[in-house]
Amino acid sequence: MNTIGKILALTSFGESHGPAVGGVLDGVPAGVAIDLDELQRFVDRRRTGQTPGSSARGEEDRVEVLSGIWQGKTLGTPIGFIVRNNDARSGDYEEIARCYRPNHADYTWEAKYGLRDPRGGGRASARETVARVVAGGIAIQVLNHLGITVEASICTSRDATSCDIPGDLERVVADGDTLGGIISCVITGVPVGLGEPLFGKLHAQLAAAMMSIPSVHGFEYGDGFDMATRRGSEVMDVFERRDDGSIGTVANHSGGIQGGISNGEDITMRIAFKPVPTLMRPIPAIDRDGNPVTLAPRGRHDAWVLPRAVPIVESMAALVILDNYLIKKTNVLG
Amino acid sequence: MNTIGKILALTSFGESHGPAVGGVLDGVPAGVAIDLDELQRFVDRRRTGQTPGSSARGEEDRVEVLSGIWQGKTLGTPIGFIVRNNDARSGDYEEIARCYRPNHADYTWEAKYGLRDPRGGGRASARETVARVVAGGIAIQVLNHLGITVEASICTSRDATSCDIPGDLERVVADGDTLGGIISCVITGVPVGLGEPLFGKLHAQLAAAMMSIPSVHGFEYGDGFDMATRRGSEVMDVFERRDDGSIGTVANHSGGIQGGISNGEDITMRIAFKPVPTLMRPIPAIDRDGNPVTLAPRGRHDAWVLPRAVPIVESMAALVILDNYLIKKTNVLG
Amino acid sequence: MNTIGKILALTSFGESHGPAVGGVLDGVPAGVAIDLDELQRFVDRRRTGQTPGSSARGEEDRVEVLSGIWQGKTLGTPIGFIVRNNDARSGDYEEIARCYRPNHADYTWEAKYGLRDPRGGGRASARETVARVVAGGIAIQVLNHLGITVEASICTSRDATSCDIPGDLERVVADGDTLGGIISCVITGVPVGLGEPLFGKLHAQLAAAMMSIPSVHGFEYGDGFDMATRRGSEVMDVFERRDDGSIGTVANHSGGIQGGISNGEDITMRIAFKPVPTLMRPIPAIDRDGNPVTLAPRGRHDAWVLPRAVPIVESMAALVILDNYLIKKTNVLG
Amino acid sequence: MNTIGKILALTSFGESHGPAVGGVLDGVPAGVAIDLDELQRFVDRRRTGQTPGSSARGEEDRVEVLSGIWQGKTLGTPIGFIVRNNDARSGDYEEIARCYRPNHADYTWEAKYGLRDPRGGGRASARETVARVVAGGIAIQVLNHLGITVEASICTSRDATSCDIPGDLERVVADGDTLGGIISCVITGVPVGLGEPLFGKLHAQLAAAMMSIPSVHGFEYGDGFDMATRRGSEVMDVFERRDDGSIGTVANHSGGIQGGISNGEDITMRIAFKPVPTLMRPIPAIDRDGNPVTLAPRGRHDAWVLPRAVPIVESMAALVILDNYLIKKTNVLG
Repeated sequence: MNTIGKILALTSFGESHGPAVGGVLDGVPAGVAIDLDELQRFVDRRRTGQTPGSSARGEEDRVEVLSGIWQGKTLGTPIGFIVRNNDARSGDYEEIARCYRPNHADYTWEAKYGLRDPRGGGRASARETVARVVAGGIAIQVLNHLGITVEASICTSRDATSCDIPGDLERVVADGDTLGGIISCVITGVPVGLGEPLFGKLHAQLAAAMMSIPSVHGFEYGDGFDMATRRGSEVMDVFERRDDGSIGTVANHSGGIQGGISNGEDITMRIAFKPVPTLMRPIPAIDRDGNPVTLAPRGRHDAWVLPRAVPIVESMAALVILDNYLIKKTNVLG
Repeated sequence: MNTIGKILALTSFGESHGPAVGGVLDGVPAGVAIDLDELQRFVDRRRTGQTPGSSARGEEDRVEVLSGIWQGKTLGTPIGFIVRNNDARSGDYEEIARCYRPNHADYTWEAKYGLRDPRGGGRASARETVARVVAGGIAIQVLNHLGITVEASICTSRDATSCDIPGDLERVVADGDTLGGIISCVITGVPVGLGEPLFGKLHAQLAAAMMSIPSVHGFEYGDGFDMATRRGSEVMDVFERRDDGSIGTVANHSGGIQGGISNGEDITMRIAFKPVPTLMRPIPAIDRDGNPVTLAPRGRHDAWVLPRAVPIVESMAALVILDNYLIKKTNVLG
Repeated sequence: MNTIGKILALTSFGESHGPAVGGVLDGVPAGVAIDLDELQRFVDRRRTGQTPGSSARGEEDRVEVLSGIWQGKTLGTPIGFIVRNNDARSGDYEEIARCYRPNHADYTWEAKYGLRDPRGGGRASARETVARVVAGGIAIQVLNHLGITVEASICTSRDATSCDIPGDLERVVADGDTLGGIISCVITGVPVGLGEPLFGKLHAQLAAAMMSIPSVHGFEYGDGFDMATRRGSEVMDVFERRDDGSIGTVANHSGGIQGGISNGEDITMRIAFKPVPTLMRPIPAIDRDGNPVTLAPRGRHDAWVLPRAVPIVESMAALVILDNYLIKKTNVLG
Repeated sequence: MNTIGKILALTSFGESHGPAVGGVLDGVPAGVAIDLDELQRFVDRRRTGQTPGSSARGEEDRVEVLSGIWQGKTLGTPIGFIVRNNDARSGDYEEIARCYRPNHADYTWEAKYGLRDPRGGGRASARETVARVVAGGIAIQVLNHLGITVEASICTSRDATSCDIPGDLERVVADGDTLGGIISCVITGVPVGLGEPLFGKLHAQLAAAMMSIPSVHGFEYGDGFDMATRRGSEVMDVFERRDDGSIGTVANHSGGIQGGISNGEDITMRIAFKPVPTLMRPIPAIDRDGNPVTLAPRGRHDAWVLPRAVPIVESMAALVILDNYLIKKTNVLG
């Protein structure tokens, strides 16, 4: 299942060290202006080598749009695109091909499919997320035309007041260790009425989209897990009529979603990432026969992925919101 | 969107005070023995009036299976079922029909559809979950034939060591206030290889299913949000060969899922519920014109839903696992 | 797969001699007036016992709407409905349960599922079509609000000029034999732009919907198979500007669809039904061990189903058109 | 909607004169050997310039597989592929951009989307079918591993005994006119049990797939439209036990499908193509303001497409059969 979305549907393909990764974004409304330079700049935000602790793999990540956009506007037809894997070095995967590393997908993919592409993690590599940001970057531009914005940022811990680079990152890198973290995301300008009861609640779709990002282990919206320890009277989002005549809520414990449907307030959510699974130190693994082996650190890997994950989170949010914006149009006849 | 699942698909229908709620469970494999008495007992676990703080609404919740099961076995055809709404009292909804209560779906549904059924919350009522437990109860029986079990339990707070009834529940009820809580769920006996990369990661599907339950505000699997504050070296699930020759992991920080695919260990997750939104005290609301109003408490409502939510969580988990069990069969030709 | 449609989705359930057949029609826009008496009258058109050669099974076919319509209007929530099987007589199916009749689904269903419900054909019975006409009757009422009408009629042969009851029907019934026929269908008032390239061409969706009706063996639209024997210059639908300023075509060889998308002209199609497979004469069958057996005629069966099939054809057409009407709204942003 | 299939899903993209057409074939089982040279040869069968009356456009149509196949075997991951549009000449489309040609999609696409890519027909061009044959060629190789074969051939008229090039083709070309025709398709070696009741009947899926091919106006399976003029006793497919112990039918009026499910006999169908809409003579069109215009013949166009359509028909048949082969595996637990 490499497709997400109902009306706006992204289908993704590509292995880490194959010729290219890419995708097809179907269902984008026709006649919308898309700035391809702006799209390239958005995609560049997830590239490696830009922040401390990130991999030195030097992909250029040039987006090649193959269809669906002509003379700067969407045609209503599927937008096919590819990004070449120019800098893939696959020479050193033979040992990994025989082993199952901890917290990687080596074992599960091989058990599922009977074989796997071990080069750079194959399809299980985070390399696939480049297709997400291409599609997400397009969705963001469409949303912007509607006055909707998506902005994600890093919180290094659950209760962080600061969102800076973690203070211990240099030491963690020196140790050959890795970090995770939390990304929060805020969507503003969302019209009332997005999201589908029952199973398509807006936060259920957002949860699925975020949990599909590699390394994500948790999702919450509004007050999230804290809600579980509060009394009902403490988290009430009382309605009020505002000066402009619109209806809104005084507080926003609900994170902009009530009964699974957007209420016009900011949509807020938090996404928890586990630490990068590939350590730059000897790794205790197991071979296919079940014998323990120790793998020497190799390859190029991020010690901390969160800066690169920010545009990915924004992309997934944008895809969900635009899809539901389109679906909402079908709720009434006129 | 009232359907969930790809091969095993549940479609649900019904308003709280309409004639019935029900559903269609399509894709259940043929020839599987289903015990309808056991199913009724499972459905009874979500009934009201059984635990402190739960609503006095006295629904009998008798499951009426209309198709798909014959002579005690599934036919491979869709299982249609209904549960009548025998005890619906709709007399007192006129005031609510004109108002938007805090943390309810009154406003969002009306904005989305232009009208709503105000009787007992209409389709936004948790009454709809009875269809989930009927379908889930069937899925659980099928999973049990495969040696897979699903068990959820209540943790009153995020870090609770005890899972008993909250100590302050009586006082909260006396205050006309409400509580939420956390439910944890463990799935055992899951074969290796369930879950679909990319967007169909097993935990992404579980997240969507759980977040679609009314009042849920957060989801995590394995070590969840705690993962975000740990180093990579602290959460490694190192593989080992076990005495029976199988491969497993020493620890289970990953919650039984790696790369979105089950690895054969127990699948663990936690789901956060907000406190019940309907207080039994005067409620500050707003009418359609934006004027503030105070609603007197009325109707019958739970002050604490978690005991009733346990079989709902188990049901959603079972539906996702069985769907993926069936999908996995298509991964190879033979 | 008992669901059809993307935004407007019908899920059907029920065996011929089970407690009920029914369905869930999801995605009907909110706020549309539905006349349930008119719906019942439409459903009555497919009942048996009304035309020469039709079965004497005396089902009342009373539609019971369980959700989604309140105070005469659609709520935007799924419309669940059932029709009880009041007159099912299942006493005499034991011989059939062991045999495979020619042109029936006995053998294929048993091979597929490992078991089958032999009572009245189980799910393979045309009894399931009652769910189609309930859903279709609702869709037709919605379309009528939009000025779109659907009308089907019988043509006893491919080149018939008359659409009356076949002249030889009485003799065929006397012989214990059966007839098929052709139903043509015309949809008027369709806006330009319905239908989705590529795989969702409007005629492809119509074909799938019609071919899913029991006994249908062929589908064509516009000039259909005759197109294959004509030159391009003979079937040109030249555009013209009409007196009211609209654009239309002089002829309509294309049947109102060009490039898979409606062009505003009448949509025309023809559907071929095979003769009823159940003869009222001794039938050469085979038992599970492969031994030939002769089954005595029994039960109550139609010798000619076409009058009953007319509302079924109209229903399937209406479901496809309304679904595509809703999808079209998502083609542009505004 | 540019995706077809449930488990095996093809998503297609590309305009006629854009950089490339391509697609993503998701759901191909893992570990299956695919011969890319054989795939290229299959794709070459739909190229232009190979038969009398076909366009001189000299596309090389080199298939570039970007993912999903490694070391000659499928990985179970999506197979992304592109075919470059090397020989697109777009200089002369400005007049067409302002006009609606008869029997083309100019008018309907523009009405639907508000704009269109006029170069070579844009997405409405038959150029898109190259993505179908790439995907279909892969599906055919997988089916061949299972002993299933797909073979289509041309019948120049409905009742043709010969399947040669039409005798009047040279004269038609000289007239600047065009021809259509009928393609029959036979699938052999199909296991019993493929196809999903109710709406997913095997012939309904085949009909939708075939009707989605450009220019197709009719579909029938087995005896098709002739069924409508026969008595039930004349078209009985009586079962027999064969010498090898298997069960089969003596005749095959049903075309290998009963109750929507394959019965193990050859699956037979016929597909009607309209004549090519683009004549090589002055064409009466209309401009956007409704003024009649006459377009001079230009560009390069087929006068008769059927030889090129043969591999397209085979491709669509293969995609449907393989999808249903995989779905069938989910019908039982074991």
